[in-house]
Amino acid sequence: MTTEKFQVYSLIDKKKNGEKLSRDEIKWFIQGFTENIIPDYQMSAMLMAMFLKGMDVNETAFITDAMLESGEQLKFPGKNVIDKHSTGGIGDKASFILAPIAAAAGVKVPMIAGRGLGHTGGTIDKVEAIKGFQTSLDLKTFAERLQKDNLVLMGQTPEIAPADRLIYALRDVTATIDSIPLITASIMSKKLAEGANGIVFDIKTGTGAFMRETKQSRALGKSLIATSKRFKRKAVALITDMNQPLGNAAGHSNEIIESIETLKGNGPEDLTNLSIALAAHMIHLAGVEKTFAKAEARAWKVLKDGSALKEFRKLIRSQGGQEEVIDDYSLLAQATETTVVPSRKNGYVKMFANEKVGLLLIDLGGGRKMKTDVIDHAVGFIFHKKIADQVKKGEPILTIHHHPHQRQLAQEIAQRFQEEVITLSSQRVRKPKLILEKLQ
Amino acid sequence: MTTEKFQVYSLIDKKKNGEKLSRDEIKWFIQGFTENIIPDYQMSAMLMAMFLKGMDVNETAFITDAMLESGEQLKFPGKNVIDKHSTGGIGDKASFILAPIAAAAGVKVPMIAGRGLGHTGGTIDKVEAIKGFQTSLDLKTFAERLQKDNLVLMGQTPEIAPADRLIYALRDVTATIDSIPLITASIMSKKLAEGANGIVFDIKTGTGAFMRETKQSRALGKSLIATSKRFKRKAVALITDMNQPLGNAAGHSNEIIESIETLKGNGPEDLTNLSIALAAHMIHLAGVEKTFAKAEARAWKVLKDGSALKEFRKLIRSQGGQEEVIDDYSLLAQATETTVVPSRKNGYVKMFANEKVGLLLIDLGGGRKMKTDVIDHAVGFIFHKKIADQVKKGEPILTIHHHPHQRQLAQEIAQRFQEEVITLSSQRVRKPKLILEKLQ
Repeated sequence: MTTEKFQVYSLIDKKKNGEKLSRDEIKWFIQGFTENIIPDYQMSAMLMAMFLKGMDVNETAFITDAMLESGEQLKFPGKNVIDKHSTGGIGDKASFILAPIAAAAGVKVPMIAGRGLGHTGGTIDKVEAIKGFQTSLDLKTFAERLQKDNLVLMGQTPEIAPADRLIYALRDVTATIDSIPLITASIMSKKLAEGANGIVFDIKTGTGAFMRETKQSRALGKSLIATSKRFKRKAVALITDMNQPLGNAAGHSNEIIESIETLKGNGPEDLTNLSIALAAHMIHLAGVEKTFAKAEARAWKVLKDGSALKEFRKLIRSQGGQEEVIDDYSLLAQATETTVVPSRKNGYVKMFANEKVGLLLIDLGGGRKMKTDVIDHAVGFIFHKKIADQVKKGEPILTIHHHPHQRQLAQEIAQRFQEEVITLSSQRVRKPKLILEKLQ
Repeated sequence: MTTEKFQVYSLIDKKKNGEKLSRDEIKWFIQGFTENIIPDYQMSAMLMAMFLKGMDVNETAFITDAMLESGEQLKFPGKNVIDKHSTGGIGDKASFILAPIAAAAGVKVPMIAGRGLGHTGGTIDKVEAIKGFQTSLDLKTFAERLQKDNLVLMGQTPEIAPADRLIYALRDVTATIDSIPLITASIMSKKLAEGANGIVFDIKTGTGAFMRETKQSRALGKSLIATSKRFKRKAVALITDMNQPLGNAAGHSNEIIESIETLKGNGPEDLTNLSIALAAHMIHLAGVEKTFAKAEARAWKVLKDGSALKEFRKLIRSQGGQEEVIDDYSLLAQATETTVVPSRKNGYVKMFANEKVGLLLIDLGGGRKMKTDVIDHAVGFIFHKKIADQVKKGEPILTIHHHPHQRQLAQEIAQRFQEEVITLSSQRVRKPKLILEKLQ
């Protein structure tokens, strides 16, 4: 590229004044930044201008395309390659259930997943609780495996959308993360590069989600659907509740166990239902079943007959992991002590300060404050009561899995859980809806 | 400083969300940036957020103070130290007239001036057309001279408001220049550091000014007055017309000659009147005269009796310049050829595309496109007709002073002046007001 075609200054000025940028202008700017010709201080001014002045559906597609084209792109021949993206939340291990369900139904699922930072965990960190599981594949191996098997899982790679990685790092330190167009471009550039023909989005909303307001989540969902369509991908987005943990387990080993239990048919209702719903949309988008109702029935079938569990076993085996874990949870790192936290009074569970659950897990060592932090897979929580459940004084509401040296810390966490996380009501509480909206 | 006190991210986030920053927060941010602890990409995101979300009068005072305190500050005992600031425009050489007038009336005038860039020239570049004139003083010498004489002129020095220099360099490349609060802080931090007790602002408005709209100029004037008052400085701002060149001369040697002629009483009406008005406000603010009317009379008196010219001569002498220039303009570098540009038709001068005059002067070598460009003092323009003047076909409207090798260029400039700069009307045109508003 040359810096002659446009002027960096005048493009920042244009966006700052609320004007629309063209495809060429956006492409030139992103390319210039990725190639280190446009310095970070000009990019960060542009990002803040984009944040505060917004970007329309065209500009969002242009920046997505520019980021997509900064790296390699996979292409698969079949129409049954469907991916899923979750915006993340407390206890969200649905990927480990829905992906094997979809794969067992004949969908090809290319999963390139991230690590956790801040109050939510990451799929890659969680699967690494299984000894030997290799997530550092190269793109070629990833593509080959997907042709052979129906399910592959790998961590993010620099070959995919390098512009996104550079821009995200800058947004992360300049308070420009929570922009719908920029979030859309970041998600979509990676998903499009993975070669999926369709994408199912799980947009979390509530106290434990990145977006707390349903209005914001809906706006993100609409932006993702619109951008998918611009790139001729089929897409469905579910807006789902994240005002309490998903399932009953948090922490890395705990979540792997709960995922396997769910694949065995013993999962908690919310986690099972959400996984089925998301998998059914993937099966439907893939064209495996003609109607959503049939896709849903198919999802339940492959869950109940054990074929989804078989897919998960195959995934572990083919990526070098210890498949025996499926029958022997003691192969997972597990903390040797538990502290059971009783309820301080009678009532009905009304609210979870869900973000705090994630932060308490970090305090225990089961998450990252900084990118360089090492995660302890062994620690975690089991939640005994969910919103609307009746609870009696003295009844367990939480079990903390911790190490012997963490007894004092466990007591502090117990107290904070009682005082700051869970709120009881003397009145009956209505059970919250899990799937709030469907966008397509 | 420590980066522990506040978090860079959360302060950018706060401003981005339109909240007010406190004195401590702004001071910490500016100090962190100046000390190279906060990187430029975070500062540029903050500047864009400040630009787009605005800053109130408190925040403007806080950032001014933080920039002021980043460097040295002069203090003078007397109350008669008055400075002047012009936002700059085509042919604006009023400083060379008003400062000697004020000094001759007993005002102490500490002038720290800038160089030109883009379509407007700089006071320091212009005075350097006088051979030997030294503008690189150190602050101590500057302060000592002002105690002895009434008038000192120097270029900007790194000792004064270094934070402003660093921030301005970043604004210059991130499209965050035209922000009233940031312009205010940049001007005021330097003016306050110079130790003036009062400041007279000349805010240009029109096609040749940085701010083309009177509304914007008025907003800047109000912001400068409000900030001056916060720092207990007396202040007056005049909003003045810049829809045509000030005076009849542009170009460095040409403008020095016109300044000296004006000090001799032979100046053009607009330049003389504006210089008198600004000087009279300085004389009044200094308390030399009790009323503005008396101050104005005093200004006229020292202009007419030659004492202002004597002050200018003394300034040249004491700063090492060739004072004989006052009586012999041939001592200035002057281009050997002139091209006289005739009017193409009859009419009345209606409009100047005044910014283009500055750009044509740059083309001729009499200005800078880039900071590293060397200025040719010898070239320039003489304007023979101003707005409202009647002009006949074939009558001279412009004389171009240029070098023999620039004949072709002079022809092109002549044509562009006729076609793009000056507009004639067949109807009579009303003479524009020079001083549009006074704010105090």
